[in-house]
Amino acid sequence: MFTDLPDSVEIREVGPRDGLQNETTIPVGERIALIDALSATGLTAIEAASFVHPKAIPPMAGSAEVMRGITRVPGVRYRALVPNERGALDALACDADELEVVMSISETHNRKNINMAPDESVKQIIELTDLAHREETPVEAILSTAFGCAYEGDISPTRVAYYARRVLDEGGVDALSFGDTSGMATPRVVVELLDALEVEGIDISRIGLHFHNTRNTGLANIMVAMQKGVSRFDAAIGGLGGCPYSPGATGNVATEDVVHMVEDLGATTGIDLDRLIHCGQLAEELVGRQLPAQVLRSGPRTRTVVTEEPV
Amino acid sequence: MFTDLPDSVEIREVGPRDGLQNETTIPVGERIALIDALSATGLTAIEAASFVHPKAIPPMAGSAEVMRGITRVPGVRYRALVPNERGALDALACDADELEVVMSISETHNRKNINMAPDESVKQIIELTDLAHREETPVEAILSTAFGCAYEGDISPTRVAYYARRVLDEGGVDALSFGDTSGMATPRVVVELLDALEVEGIDISRIGLHFHNTRNTGLANIMVAMQKGVSRFDAAIGGLGGCPYSPGATGNVATEDVVHMVEDLGATTGIDLDRLIHCGQLAEELVGRQLPAQVLRSGPRTRTVVTEEPV
Repeated sequence: MFTDLPDSVEIREVGPRDGLQNETTIPVGERIALIDALSATGLTAIEAASFVHPKAIPPMAGSAEVMRGITRVPGVRYRALVPNERGALDALACDADELEVVMSISETHNRKNINMAPDESVKQIIELTDLAHREETPVEAILSTAFGCAYEGDISPTRVAYYARRVLDEGGVDALSFGDTSGMATPRVVVELLDALEVEGIDISRIGLHFHNTRNTGLANIMVAMQKGVSRFDAAIGGLGGCPYSPGATGNVATEDVVHMVEDLGATTGIDLDRLIHCGQLAEELVGRQLPAQVLRSGPRTRTVVTEEPV
Repeated sequence: MFTDLPDSVEIREVGPRDGLQNETTIPVGERIALIDALSATGLTAIEAASFVHPKAIPPMAGSAEVMRGITRVPGVRYRALVPNERGALDALACDADELEVVMSISETHNRKNINMAPDESVKQIIELTDLAHREETPVEAILSTAFGCAYEGDISPTRVAYYARRVLDEGGVDALSFGDTSGMATPRVVVELLDALEVEGIDISRIGLHFHNTRNTGLANIMVAMQKGVSRFDAAIGGLGGCPYSPGATGNVATEDVVHMVEDLGATTGIDLDRLIHCGQLAEELVGRQLPAQVLRSGPRTRTVVTEEPV
């Protein structure tokens, strides 16, 4: 049944940006310490910062200091989200290894989030990609609300595939990922999107998927996506993310949990789970509460109990 | 990809027994109220009680009063776990619709739990099944630690399949399920066990699986099991279960989450999710804390936000 799974899977850490952006502000030094700890786990990509205006997202203020303060480990790409030209220039000035640009497939969400129609976003992606490529920096387009929108409900997979094709062809982006912004992805929806992408001629083995665990299907989504050949997933240490003050909102899939399942399936991630669990503990200290990652507490399934009695 | 999934799936509620047995004692009247609320959701099977000695598991004291106090809804089977002949007689005296008998495949766990070697357990299952059948009451054998044991580590799927065959042939049990006692099931382990059962000639479409969400793979396990043809799963309302005082222990997969994913996959469960979410809220009141079910808070993916602004 699992003979066609990818041999290796890249798990990209998004905790320091997507995970922390809805928290109360975490001091720059603590964000740097978290990223440095994550850099020692074997992760190859860390979303380290967001160059949005600090008035828009106060917890991401100081991103330039974060990017300059971290200790760069060879083999790790430090990524930055950029909302516009100003953000892109700031990120490039800090030597971000990759830029991320976001557009929502849901017009309602895109207008609410960045006040643009989807077609305007495509135009912006073209411009930002040109800018980044002049500095020889790759760009990834993140298509958000790709599995549904809390405002619009279902999003047509064909529509997602249409924009995916456009940002690849017109935008010239180097990579593409699909975000489950509203936590509406289920195994069915994942397969429907991947099928639509294949119809559009998009190479499934090269895309990335970004799931939240809002309805507890996060790892089931990853499972079926791996069966379809996807080999790149975002995750946040501890399951950071969502809005801690909103009881219905929940975070990203937890890096610990994803690494544990993916490695158990026989796909290599290159990530040391023990070190990752240490980072999860650090993340809990940073935000001052228990996080939803399960393997953070249980450890891997290979962790057995030492029996007290002779058996 | 999902063309071979079962058309319908039975989800059996285990919250009132497996879910509550590690809580502080819940008054009998509240246990009855929870079961009565669950009876109105469309569930067809509810694990209502456990006839273990109240000194062994104090929260299950009063199980006879629970069984006699509930309002039986036609079409719902009220099940009871029985550890021995005395328990079986008590459960039959309360008109339990089905009896459950448990044995661990792990010898270490079986000895710690019920102080028997696995072979002694098989003998006990034969005797209890004879007893129940004289009262025309069906019996299900639950093979626990079927996906791993916290003491012994990996459990050979061949060994599980061997005992499954024996309790069917020698025990004459009417149904069979496999418990993830230590929360060690992953999609890989699930497929390995199902493959071993098929080699042993056991009809996968008739077995039940019982998962905990200890390492966040609960719904991924169910997903791959459905792909293999399994159509019966246990779940606990709210994700009750585990030991609330032990930070590493976690509960059963949550009924709300399982129903949501299974129905989204196009398999019917007959269960009304709104009523189930109401039961989850009731379960949280009973135990006095937030439970891990996600759909309990988020609602189904079809729940959209009413936008305040014109869009």
